[in-house]
Order: sequence, then structure tokens, then C-alpha cells
Amino acid sequence: MNQTVDQPETMESAGDRPAEELRALIDRIEDALDAGKLNRVEKTIATLHSADLADLLEQLHPDDRRTVVNLIRPQLGDEPEVLSYLNDEVRDEIVALLRPEEVATVLTEMVTDDAVALVEDLDEEEREEILASMPTSARLLVEEGLSFPEESAGRLMQREMVAVPMFWTVGKTIDFLRTSDVLPDDFYMIFMIDPKYRPVGGALLSRVLRSRRSVKLADLMDQDVRTIPADMDQEEVAFLFRQYGLVSAPVVDDGGKLLGVITVDDVVNVIQEENQEDMLRLGGVQEEDRLSTVANTARSRFSWLGVNFLTAVLASAVIAFFEATIAQVVALAVLMPIVASMGGNAGTQTMTVTVRGLATKELAGRSARRMVVKEIAVGAINGVLFAVVVGAVAALWFSDPGIGFVIGLAMIITLIVAGLSGAVIPLVLERLNIDPAVASGVFLTTVTDVVGFFTFLGLAAWILL
Amino acid sequence: MNQTVDQPETMESAGDRPAEELRALIDRIEDALDAGKLNRVEKTIATLHSADLADLLEQLHPDDRRTVVNLIRPQLGDEPEVLSYLNDEVRDEIVALLRPEEVATVLTEMVTDDAVALVEDLDEEEREEILASMPTSARLLVEEGLSFPEESAGRLMQREMVAVPMFWTVGKTIDFLRTSDVLPDDFYMIFMIDPKYRPVGGALLSRVLRSRRSVKLADLMDQDVRTIPADMDQEEVAFLFRQYGLVSAPVVDDGGKLLGVITVDDVVNVIQEENQEDMLRLGGVQEEDRLSTVANTARSRFSWLGVNFLTAVLASAVIAFFEATIAQVVALAVLMPIVASMGGNAGTQTMTVTVRGLATKELAGRSARRMVVKEIAVGAINGVLFAVVVGAVAALWFSDPGIGFVIGLAMIITLIVAGLSGAVIPLVLERLNIDPAVASGVFLTTVTDVVGFFTFLGLAAWILL
Repeated sequence: MNQTVDQPETMESAGDRPAEELRALIDRIEDALDAGKLNRVEKTIATLHSADLADLLEQLHPDDRRTVVNLIRPQLGDEPEVLSYLNDEVRDEIVALLRPEEVATVLTEMVTDDAVALVEDLDEEEREEILASMPTSARLLVEEGLSFPEESAGRLMQREMVAVPMFWTVGKTIDFLRTSDVLPDDFYMIFMIDPKYRPVGGALLSRVLRSRRSVKLADLMDQDVRTIPADMDQEEVAFLFRQYGLVSAPVVDDGGKLLGVITVDDVVNVIQEENQEDMLRLGGVQEEDRLSTVANTARSRFSWLGVNFLTAVLASAVIAFFEATIAQVVALAVLMPIVASMGGNAGTQTMTVTVRGLATKELAGRSARRMVVKEIAVGAINGVLFAVVVGAVAALWFSDPGIGFVIGLAMIITLIVAGLSGAVIPLVLERLNIDPAVASGVFLTTVTDVVGFFTFLGLAAWILL
Repeated sequence: MNQTVDQPETMESAGDRPAEELRALIDRIEDALDAGKLNRVEKTIATLHSADLADLLEQLHPDDRRTVVNLIRPQLGDEPEVLSYLNDEVRDEIVALLRPEEVATVLTEMVTDDAVALVEDLDEEEREEILASMPTSARLLVEEGLSFPEESAGRLMQREMVAVPMFWTVGKTIDFLRTSDVLPDDFYMIFMIDPKYRPVGGALLSRVLRSRRSVKLADLMDQDVRTIPADMDQEEVAFLFRQYGLVSAPVVDDGGKLLGVITVDDVVNVIQEENQEDMLRLGGVQEEDRLSTVANTARSRFSWLGVNFLTAVLASAVIAFFEATIAQVVALAVLMPIVASMGGNAGTQTMTVTVRGLATKELAGRSARRMVVKEIAVGAINGVLFAVVVGAVAALWFSDPGIGFVIGLAMIITLIVAGLSGAVIPLVLERLNIDPAVASGVFLTTVTDVVGFFTFLGLAAWILL
């Protein structure tokens, strides 16, 4: 027997910068498409992981996309994951290119959570047509998945899992696994159930593998298993997986019966999406629009800019109130943006930390109250420091100590208000069940602009004139 | 044999809102501490998961923290994870409360990646003292971990893993696992190695468990295994795990020899941290400071506000250049913040999407060039739309069509520049190896403020006077 082993073809070694290499490869495929070298394109595509193929499809111009879809069409049933990896906009477009029966075949090959995620975005009519083309058993699982609330554990879970009676031994379990033909492709944990199909625990595969055949599964129970109610919000699911380092968790119905399993790879996607959503929304973007058309992007950004426009007009109205004052001391017009800008920035710092704390579920009760007090103190400290700086700059610039005093005082007040509102606004919005990442920014800018302009110009009118 | 099974104590059922319940529990423990009910505190703490205990320690006042550390001191060796779950600032404080030998015991009980992560943050002297108290074998593994660059795969990996010769069968592997006493607590994959200890593939445990004893491991090889060089940046590692849904991956040295394994739970933390970092930095916060003291928070926020102050003064200088114009038409002072504010917001939208695309490694080459072109177009479209709106508002407000024309034209120019710079600034910074999330905001605001004020006031001086 020859035991010398060469590096086999199946083992991919990642380069140092795999992401860049992937982007370059995708660009080369697009070049080949542009040059009409379809043979080469087909050959390269055959070697791609379905996640990479999805990235390629997302990047392409709609015409090129159609060409590639026609190339991969016959293999879609073997590689259904491609569709799961696509973003919504591109996926809709590609589903529209396929016949309902083709989509039905792909869906039947998918694990339930992926199939549900695809179907939930289709419009009513398309959905009915496609579901009708699926085999009954697969269709029922998808329909059951759709019966759970959006973004709930029920939508995230896959129904394919391994559940055996608690009193089984390792030996009996292994024998069962070796002969059963209804197992999921991959799994991380074996759940133990009672006669009513309620989960009573889970055993990690590594524990099962290292234990003798006579050992009872019940003795291998993992301490960290937690059952998840099917209607739990996916953010809470993500919290549990992050907090306790879970790899998989059983999902149960109202009666505690085992329904399915959520695995860490689904949760990685949720974490990534939730993080992305918060980050974009804080930046005034409703949803990832990098791959959207110019028209769609302009439309979705317009509404946020519109809200901001109203805020800006409100700030202008405050300034207009002091037109007479400005006409007398034009220096005020020169200096006034400084106060408002510093207030906006200080408030944004506090708001970002608060929204982040709310997203990771670490801000509530005592910790929230403590945060508000702390942010007011931080605002006061930096307010005083910058009051000295800006006061000196203004007094020297316009050779007028009075104007230095006024802008310094306005700075202190504005930064304290900025700290207070940066912390309180997101907390209040969360309490009102409004997403703090979406709405905090508008309210905050309104407050800091109005307070910034009003205190500075108001104090100037009162003290300087 | 009685096969009726009751819900055993080990199975924790999560409530609907586990995060809130945890916060409430932590608040109750703090209340009990304040009331001096140490007995009750000790009893509750004993039931806590180490991640929850870490959250409690983070929230407490330093004095209360000392009390709790004294309570858990004797059990720290059994539950070393508590220290891994803590944030850096609180962990430093707690390590300072412990004797070097106590820390050494905890480190010896930890998996390598956690131990390395703890030791890397200690100062030189503390580190030497603690390492000297560790058993040689454990110390060597930690020191080897420290020899890899910070934030690299080498620091993330754990050394505890399962690697067997490729020609082994399932039966031989299971027998080995059942008798070996140097196995990690938990693992997800069995790596196959060649005689030179180079990994040639990996088999998922679920595949091993369901295969007959005579099957060769080589026939169970997972297609998605990728080896990771030990010096790969952790962001690239996170990219690979996300892109390909990996659960674990082998880490190799320069010669391709197997060094250790990275598992998905480590990567979840990296993803969470990198996301958090980007989000906070875009908001002008250097690092998570929610749990820092008032003084530390004020100090770290001060520097960003200082940079912003310079930007604001620069914008003021632009306005000062047009003092004479403003003295003649005070309406300009009233309206000028609108243009700058809209430019800042539109630019921030583009910047946020760009920074996000760079963070997920999806922006390079063609996709980056396409983004710049698209963002200019989006800026032009929204520029024209808001030019009409703001032009009408200004013309009516001040009964002066000229001022409406000027502000409309300034709006178009500013929003186009905002789209261009929102896309280009982060791309250029990334190319220069400067973190775009940290620096883009300053440059962007400077550009949009200067362009906003200059075009509006400049056009006004040129056209209206």
C-alpha cells in the first residue's frame, strides 16, 4: 500500500488576500463576457463556489447576467445555493428569468430556511405559481415556514435535523445514523426528545464520537443548549448565539415540541445583516443600495434628504429670527456654523454609542440611566474645553472679547444638550418601538442645530447689542 | 425501565426576550449588592453562565466589582472563560486584582486563542510575571501564539485539534477518538494530514458519524475546506467564513504544516468587533467607550471633536471671505446652512455605503469604478430635484427669484461634489492603507462645507450684486 499522499485537488489553499483575488477573478470573467468568449466564461464558472457565482451575478450588467443565467440554467438544481446567496434585487430579476417549474426544482433541493427566505420575497402571484409546481411534502414545509412571523426564529430554522429518544446509547445512535436515509446533509448536534417530541437536551457530535458505544446520550448532554421559541425575533436569536457561543439550537412550538434547528451559519448572516442595517441607517441610507440602479438609489436616498431638508429649513428659520442682529454684527454669520457643527458632531458620537449599545442589547434599566448621566458629564467637560478654545479664537479673530464670551457660553450649552439628546433620543425611540438607527439622526440634528444657532445668536442679541 | 422523561434541569428554555431578562437579572444582582445581601448575590452568581457573569462585572461600579471578584475567586480556574468575555478595560482592572499565579492558573485552563487574547493586552512586566508562573507546555503555546502578528489568523486559532493520517478509516478514527486523552473539549471537523503534517482535507463530524467503519476518511472529504495561512489578516479570515459558510478551517505555517484550527465562534466575535469598529468610527468614536469612565470618554472623544473644530473654522474662513456680500444681503446668512447641510448628508449617505462595501470586501476594480460613476449620477439627480424645491422656497421666502436661482445652482454643484467625494475619499484612503471608516468623515465634511458655502456665497456675490 502506497501511503504517500499528494495534495489532492479538493483541498483549496487560500491566498493571502482571498477577497481581492475573488474580485479580480470576477472582473476577468466580466472582461471575457465583454469579449464574447463564452466558452472560457463557462469553464471558469464551473469552478466557482456558488457564493462566488452569486457575487459575479450581482456585479454584472443585466444583459450579461442573462447570458450567465442561461449558461448555468441546467445545473441550478444541483447548486440551489446560488439563489440563496444573491441579494434581493438581483434574485428577483433572476427568478423572473426562470420558468416557475425551474424555480420549484431549485426550491425543492434547498434546505427549508433558504427556500422560505427565497419564497417570502416573491409577489403573491409568482409565489402561488411556483409553490404549485413543488412536490407536496416540500411545499408544505415551505408553507409552514411562511406561517411564522417575518424575521422570527421560525423563518430561520431548517426542518432537517437529527432527533432521537433520550434513552438511546451512543452505539444505537451511530447505528441509526449509518442506516437512516432522511438525515440532513450536515449537522452539529443530536437532539434528544421525550415521547411527546419535546427536546430535553442536545449532544455535540464530538462528544458522541469520542464516547464508547455503551454510553447513554443523556450523559453527554451539553450544558449550553437552550430551546428557542419559534416566534422569537431573529435579533434575540442572534443575541443568544453571540452571548453563549452556540453552534446550533433547537426551535420549539408553543407546546414545547421540537420543530427544527437554527445553526450558526444562519446566525452569522443575521448578525451581518443587522449590523449592516444599523450602520447604513445611521448614515441615512434605508437599505444596501450599492448594487441598485441609479434611479432606485436616487429615489430611496431622496426621502432621507427630504427629511433633512425640512430640518435645515427649520434651522434657517431660527437664524432668520435674528436677521437684524446679524445685519449689525456680520461676524455672527461667520461664526455661527461652528457651534452648530460641534453640537452635531458631539451628539452623533453619543448617539452612535447608544444605538450600538441598544443593538447589542446591552442598554436597559440601570445601564441606560447611567449612560445618560455620563454623557451629560462628557458633554459638559468637552463643552468647557472647547469653549476656551473657540472663545479665544473668536475674540482674537474679531478683536472682541464679548463675541468670544458669547460663543464660549453657547458651546458649553450646546455640547451638554448634544450629550443629553444623543443618549436620550435613541433610548426613547427604542421604548416607542421605532428603530433608533433610522430616526435618531433627524431628531438629533434638529435639536443640535436649533439649540446651536439659537443659543449663539440669542446670547449675542442679548449681551452684545 | 422507566422511559418517561421529565424536562431535566440541564435544559434551559429561553424566554421570548432573553436579552431583557438578562439585563433585569443583572440589575437585581446590583440591587442586592447595594443592599449588602452578599449571600443572595453569591447564590445567584453561581447559576450564571460565564458570559453573563462577565456582563455583570462590566456593568458594576469598581467597588462592587471587587466584591464580586472576591466571591468568584476560588472558582475562576474552573470557569476561565469569564475573563475572555470581558472587555479590555474591565479585564485589565480585574487582572490587576488577582495574583499572578491566579491569572496563570486561569490561562492554563483556557484554550490557546483565548489565552493569547488575554495575554496580548497585558503590559510587558505583568505579562512576564504571569507567563513565568505557567507550566512550560502551556506557556510555550501562548508565546508561540504571541509570535504571530496582531489580528492575524495565528492569534485567532486554537492549537487543540484533531488531525489523523489521511488513509485512516472511520472505524480506526473512532477508536482513536475513544481512547485518546489529548482531544480538545469540542471540535467540528477531523483534519487529515500527510506524513509531513500538511493538511490534505477535512471531514465533517456528521459525515464521519453516519459512515460505516470501513469507509476511508479520504472519501468523506468536505469540498469547502480551505487552509488559512497563519499570517492572514483576521478580516480576510472573517470574509472566508462568511462567504463560504465555514464552521472550522485549518491554519498552516509558511511550509504548509498544520498549526491549529479556527472555529466559527471566534469568527463571530471578529465579525461583531469589526462591524462595531466601523460603525463607531463612522460616528466619530475611536472605540467602544460605553463602559469607560467619564474622563477617559471625554478625552478620547475630544480628539475627534478637535479635528472637526478645525474643519468648522475652515468653513468659517470661507464665509468670512464673503462678509461684505452677507452684510449687503442678510438673507444669504439665513440660507447658507441649507446647502452645506444637504451636501454633508448626501455625502454621508454615499460614504456610508462605500465604507460598508469596502468592509465586506466587495468593492474593488470594476465594481469600485462603477460605484463612483453611479454616485455622481445619483448626486446630479437629487441635486436637480432639491434645486427646484429649495429654489422655490428661497425665492418665495425672500421674494427674490435671483436668490432662488443661486441657491438652486449651488445645490446641484454641491450634491454632485458630495456624491463624487463620498465615493472617492474612502476608496483613496483604503488604497493608502488608512482606515476609511476613521478618516473619511473629516475629509468629506471639509469638502462639502467648503464647496457648499463657497458655491452659494460665490454665486451670490457674482450674480446678485
